[in-house]
Parts: sequence; C-alpha cells; structure tokens
Amino acid sequence: MRRRILTGMRPTGALHLGHYAGALENWVRLQDEYECFFLIADYQALGDHIDDIPRIRRSVVEVTLDWLAVRLDPEKSSFVVQSYVPEHAELALLLGTLVSLPRLQRNPTLKGEMGQFKAQEVTVTFFTYPVSQAADILLPKAHLVPVGEDQLPHIELTREVAGRFNRSYGEVFPIPEALVGRVPRLVGIDGQAKMSKSLDNAIYLSDPEEVVTEKVRRMYTDPTRIHPTDPGHVEGNPVFMYLDAFDPHADEVSELKERYRKGTVGDVEVKRILAQRLNELLEPIRERRRSYEQHPDLVREALLEGTKRHKAIAEETMREVRDGLHISQYV
Amino acid sequence: MRRRILTGMRPTGALHLGHYAGALENWVRLQDEYECFFLIADYQALGDHIDDIPRIRRSVVEVTLDWLAVRLDPEKSSFVVQSYVPEHAELALLLGTLVSLPRLQRNPTLKGEMGQFKAQEVTVTFFTYPVSQAADILLPKAHLVPVGEDQLPHIELTREVAGRFNRSYGEVFPIPEALVGRVPRLVGIDGQAKMSKSLDNAIYLSDPEEVVTEKVRRMYTDPTRIHPTDPGHVEGNPVFMYLDAFDPHADEVSELKERYRKGTVGDVEVKRILAQRLNELLEPIRERRRSYEQHPDLVREALLEGTKRHKAIAEETMREVRDGLHISQYV
Repeated sequence: MRRRILTGMRPTGALHLGHYAGALENWVRLQDEYECFFLIADYQALGDHIDDIPRIRRSVVEVTLDWLAVRLDPEKSSFVVQSYVPEHAELALLLGTLVSLPRLQRNPTLKGEMGQFKAQEVTVTFFTYPVSQAADILLPKAHLVPVGEDQLPHIELTREVAGRFNRSYGEVFPIPEALVGRVPRLVGIDGQAKMSKSLDNAIYLSDPEEVVTEKVRRMYTDPTRIHPTDPGHVEGNPVFMYLDAFDPHADEVSELKERYRKGTVGDVEVKRILAQRLNELLEPIRERRRSYEQHPDLVREALLEGTKRHKAIAEETMREVRDGLHISQYV
Repeated sequence: MRRRILTGMRPTGALHLGHYAGALENWVRLQDEYECFFLIADYQALGDHIDDIPRIRRSVVEVTLDWLAVRLDPEKSSFVVQSYVPEHAELALLLGTLVSLPRLQRNPTLKGEMGQFKAQEVTVTFFTYPVSQAADILLPKAHLVPVGEDQLPHIELTREVAGRFNRSYGEVFPIPEALVGRVPRLVGIDGQAKMSKSLDNAIYLSDPEEVVTEKVRRMYTDPTRIHPTDPGHVEGNPVFMYLDAFDPHADEVSELKERYRKGTVGDVEVKRILAQRLNELLEPIRERRRSYEQHPDLVREALLEGTKRHKAIAEETMREVRDGLHISQYV
C-alpha cells in the first residue's frame, strides 16, 4: 500500500504564487508516489470567517479550480471537502478529550494567530482548530503531512495525540511526520515578509498575463539603486527571489545576477524577463483553469468523488477509534 | 405538535435520590405533555473521564436501567445516546463559530467546575462542553430544558447562540427556555450540600432495602441534640428535608416535626419512619429495575429506538443549518 499524505488549504481566497512555490508544486510531484488527500478545510475557515460565508463559498470553488489547473489530479488523489465528512467533527471531539487546555494554550502558532484578533473575535472553533487539524490528519491515517514551518506545532500536537491514543486504546494511527517544503514562504511583490491576499501583495495563479506583467513592473526591488548603471543588490531583492523560485533557466538567472551586481542591466529589463518567465509558467495553468471553469460538473465531480473515497476511510477509522475506546456499543 | 423537551444526564454513575427529587420525578410527569428527549451525554462524560471509560460504559447501562425503573417510558419518550448521533459533534463545531472564547471563559458554572481540577486535567472537550450542550438542546429543536440552577448559564448561552443563528441565517431554532426544578439540590446523608457519588453520601435508587435502612440510620441529623427528649431542630435537618421531599403523607411529617421540636420523638423513631417511606418509594423502582436487568434486549431497544427517532430529527436539523449557512453544496 502506498503511504498516505494529508495536506490541505483553508478556502479563504484564490491561490497565488506563494501557494504554488510553498505547496502546490510539491504536491503535484508527491501524488505519484503517495496516496494523497488534499483537504479543503472549510470548517476551519468558518472558525474565523463565519461573518463572510460568501467568501468561503467562492473560495472552495476557486481553490478547486486552482488545484485542477496546476495538475493536481482528482483521479490519482482525493480532493476532500472537510465539512462533507461529519466523522471529522466526531474525531475532533474525541481527540479533544486527550488534549489538556494548557497544552493547547501553549501552542505558539495558535498564540500568534490569536494575537492578531481582538479577544472577542476569537471563536471557540478557531481556538480549537489545532485539535481539529489533528483529526484531519488522523482520520485518513496519514503518514506524511506537507506543511509550512508555522504548522509544525500542530503536527507535534497531532503526534502526541496519536501516540497517546495508540498506547491507551490500541494501535490505530500511524504517527505522522511533517514534510516541510523547500520554499517555506514567498515574499510579496511589495517586499513584505509574506505574499498574502490580506496584504494585497500577491500574484494569483488566475491573474491574466497583463496583470502579472503590471504587478511585476510595480514590484519592490533594490531601493538603493537609482540608475540602471548603479551596482545593485541581489540578496533580499524580491525580483531575484522570484527568478530563483520560478525561472527554470539557472544560467539565465546567474547571468542576470552578475550583470545586476555590476550595473549592466536595469530593473526594467530584469522585470521584463521575470514577467515573461512567470507568464510562461502561468499560461498553461490559466488555460486549464479556463477549461475547468467551463465545466463545473468536473469540478463538482472532483470534490464529490474524492470526498467519497475519503469518507469510506474515515468511517472505517471511526469504527476502529470507537472500538478502541470501547464506546461502539454499550449494551 | 407537542412542544419538545431535551434534558439529560452524564453517565458517570448510578442514579440516587438527588436525581430523583431534582429531575426524574419531574421528567416522568413531563413525558405526557411534551415530546421528550432524554440524553445520555457520553461524549460530555468522556470530556473528564477519558481515563475511566469502563465507568462510563457501566453507567450508560445503569442510567438507562434507572430511567426505565422510575417509569421513563421509551415508547412515549426518546432515550438518546449522544455519541450515536454524529450530527451532535457537527453542530457543536458549527455553533462554536458563533461563540467567542471570552464569552465561554466567562461562564460561571464552567469556571467553578474547572476550578475543581488541576489546570492540566482540564481537557479541551471538557472546556468546550457548554457549546456541546447548546448543540444537544438545539439539535432536536427543544423548547424547554429542565435543568438544575447551576445549568442556567449554559441555557443562557444556548439562547444567545440560537438567536444569533436565527437572525443571521434564518429561523431554524426555537429559543429554548429553562425549566428549573422545584427541588434544585438534595443534601447528602452526611448533611453536606449535595448528594453525590464522589462525596459518598448518596442513597441510590438501586440500593437494597437493608442498605437504605442502614444509610438512614447513619444519617446526619441535629448535632445539638443529645437525648431524644431534648428539643430538636427541624430546619436544616437532613432527615426532615428528606421527609419533606419523599414522604407523601404531609400530616405525618407535620406531626413528626412538632414532636421533634418538643422533644417527644427520638431520632431513631424518625429515621425508622423515613427509612420505611423511602423503601416504599424505592421498592417498585427496584422491582422494575430487576426485571429490566433480566432483559438487556429491552434496554438495548430503548436506547436504539430512541436514538433512531432523535437521529432522524437531527439529520433534518443539520440540513436546515447547512442550508441556512449556505454550505450544503459549494458547486
């Protein structure tokens, strides 16, 4: 049996180059070697977007289109809508009996995220999402979880909970391992730490060619460089970070870096090349996306078929969990 | 349509006179007028008994036997095992998006209960149980919730959540009302504030006659009274509280009180009468209990049939909830 992977995204917006470099590019490769479950975590998104459900609704479709467009393959892998699998909520509730409140409160990622809200904006469902995420991972008995570094505390919690369950109630769960991506985080076009919808500094997989070109033209670059003949800085320069991440021609990139350092190539020229390379990357993605947009039936089928495969496994896992806990039948 | 009642108990031990006076006696009456759902809250019990599942297993059966023995009628009313209805966990997760963390933390009953544990003993599932209880109440769309006074903050939370849901996503839930029992709390035989298993001061519905008599003989009474001829105190005297609660002959009780105050009746005599009245109350209960103990199939059927009726309603409620939230179908 192929080893299993569970990973996923919150449906809170269309996907951008940060998702591509940090996750999708890798997921596409993984699906040949592993049995992959790609989760659309709508319950988790509801935890802090209950007042903007239309956004979640739109985003479930956007994310699925983006996944299909980058060649995540719903025949090889299972696309799963979290809320279509009620076993998820059940397992989360049961795993919550194995996690102490102080243990959850200590989670540094959760703490950081909660700090970004006003206290009264943090919902109970948001607060408990790391336990819910443990249920996501354990329900399909995943062995590997491709994640960003910020998710490592959640994987650690999941490993603890799985270990505790196995020791007390029988070996039900593999102890999952994190698989941290090579490119953990892509800077935004404004040079800010992270490309994100909320910072409005993202290039989306669905951006048309001219939008990509325009966003690259506006990109933050070396602020110390006034004239194209000034020696420029390559390190920490978003334009070169993107070239490193997305230009498949390593020679071209080294040559540009050398010329940029010497002051023999201008920002305009480097950005022109970057825009071209990005559009070369994105054009087939956009094309497949357009084709799926014409066929909502295929999008629906991808979600329903994947969820169905996942649900069969989830039901079996829940049977084992209940049997292990001896709560399958009381009399 | 008859109005609906949801109430229930945590399966953490056999039931005692405190449960009878505070709840069961009343429930038996209510089942003629209302459509009643009596919940065995095993998920909730797991929240603080995950290390003692055998106790929960035993208690699910004990509680059901006690319910049947006092004439809760599984034909008229639905006995429901909480964990057999996965919609419960789903609704709890969704309602948790409508409750802020500070709102939950302010709950005085929860605060008090948490204070009885060491911090690391409080589990996430225990901490969130008031939200889970809101789901218990709203899933069958209950109008009335017979509870003890300590549960009022949970009903208040449930009303808030139901109101918020209705205003934002459509009128799905009746706003439930608490029905506080006449006898909120029965003192223990040791005179302590509350009869409870953990204080080992309870008379169980299943206690044999001689055990009841012996427990009454040992009962705490007026500590200022040395001789049967001393004038005694009736107020705050557990023996008389029990007579008030369980002796159907009001004349007998007033006469005993008068003689006790005057010092013309001794504790031994009063206790003999109390033991006799309790055994008169309990004997038919014990007899029905013994008969159901011989027929585990009837116990099983009561739980499965009631749960099935409840689950059909729960599924319909969840459809309405998902439709209201617009998350039934994304594409």
